[in-house]
Amino acid sequence: MSTAALLVIGNEILSGKVRDTNSAYLSVELRKLGVDLERILTIPDVIEIIANEARAMSESYDFVFTSGGIGPTHDDLTMDGIAMAFDLDIVLNQSMVDRMARHSKAPINDAMKKMALIPEGAEVLDVGGLWFPVVVVSNVHIFPGIPELFEKKFDSIRDRFSGVPFQLRKIYVRENESDIAETLNTLLKEFSELMLGSYPRINEKDYRVLLTLESRDPEYLARATDTLISRLPRDAIHKIE
Amino acid sequence: MSTAALLVIGNEILSGKVRDTNSAYLSVELRKLGVDLERILTIPDVIEIIANEARAMSESYDFVFTSGGIGPTHDDLTMDGIAMAFDLDIVLNQSMVDRMARHSKAPINDAMKKMALIPEGAEVLDVGGLWFPVVVVSNVHIFPGIPELFEKKFDSIRDRFSGVPFQLRKIYVRENESDIAETLNTLLKEFSELMLGSYPRINEKDYRVLLTLESRDPEYLARATDTLISRLPRDAIHKIE
Repeated sequence: MSTAALLVIGNEILSGKVRDTNSAYLSVELRKLGVDLERILTIPDVIEIIANEARAMSESYDFVFTSGGIGPTHDDLTMDGIAMAFDLDIVLNQSMVDRMARHSKAPINDAMKKMALIPEGAEVLDVGGLWFPVVVVSNVHIFPGIPELFEKKFDSIRDRFSGVPFQLRKIYVRENESDIAETLNTLLKEFSELMLGSYPRINEKDYRVLLTLESRDPEYLARATDTLISRLPRDAIHKIE
Repeated sequence: MSTAALLVIGNEILSGKVRDTNSAYLSVELRKLGVDLERILTIPDVIEIIANEARAMSESYDFVFTSGGIGPTHDDLTMDGIAMAFDLDIVLNQSMVDRMARHSKAPINDAMKKMALIPEGAEVLDVGGLWFPVVVVSNVHIFPGIPELFEKKFDSIRDRFSGVPFQLRKIYVRENESDIAETLNTLLKEFSELMLGSYPRINEKDYRVLLTLESRDPEYLARATDTLISRLPRDAIHKIE
């Protein structure tokens, strides 16, 4: 079983100027791959905070992802933070500069060169059509904040991350959550390894609670789902997926 | 200056089954109020993790908010986590039970009573039309995960949180970010207290970068904005807000 954590870096998220969509994207994609995302942390553009949090995550999870802070401006401090986390120097990566030169119409200026300053010894993963690679330091994968690029880049290296995927069943229930809570608790005592979620909805007209049942073992999931269905009042079930 | 942190509690967010919108909502609202949101952390439904993170946040920030985990089911562990964080017992709050009884058509069952089990000595804030109050322990404000309720409840007690609001100006620029990076860096050397954001956009046809300038001092912000505008090529500016 593989675990992961995501570090979202950027004042623009914390101050509400830009909405983070990378967290939601990554949570869905990692789930499909069977990797357990266990922590999402959003922090400001401060080198020491980036360094401390990246180091802590690197020690606790199999895969760490960062989002944001790798552009050419003053507030792009992720590379410096990751270098500090692993006590590495920042060096100019000439192959990244050469790649920029091939893709750019204008001459390479200092601001563009800043984007090729990466922690010494970092792995540089080519990602096909994009001119900027994914930089990896230890188990930390450094991604841009721009959603279109974040998604393209993750997609291009997704094969590096995999586990045994969860199987998911959904039951849409018309009852109040408090009226089925006891049934759910009893089910969990019998199926202690089941991941059972119960999510009340306010604005849906056809159901009041979405139940999710998950397991990596399809047979176990089927037994748990059948057991639960048999215990819910027949007309309480709106839909099963 | 007041600071804040948000603790989002729920496997459903980490596994991509439910999209967190409370973070974005709170970031925008706190910004309006002049409170600096400095950290957003999403964690699983595990009592010890909730307790440790809530305690750490409570010590480091003026206001702490939690989202999720206060319903009637097995995976609703926020109250237990907050109680553990502050070494408090969990007790039945009779006024909450009475309030439920007034609002509920059905008799109060055990699952509903579970929602009235809160840390001993907690402050219970009435929030007008809603039958469930906001529970506050020390500086930790406990909110539901359901976005409609999160928003209504925050709105009903927003007067408790306030600071000096930031003033914001936006400049939409047609140049590449790397071509204006040097101008931005120079500006920041002269206006070191300015909060300057630079956000490249890929799919906008009218501009390539959104610049945000912020300060709590309107006069300082006006000077910084005018200085920057005077240094950008005239036809580089698409729009100023």
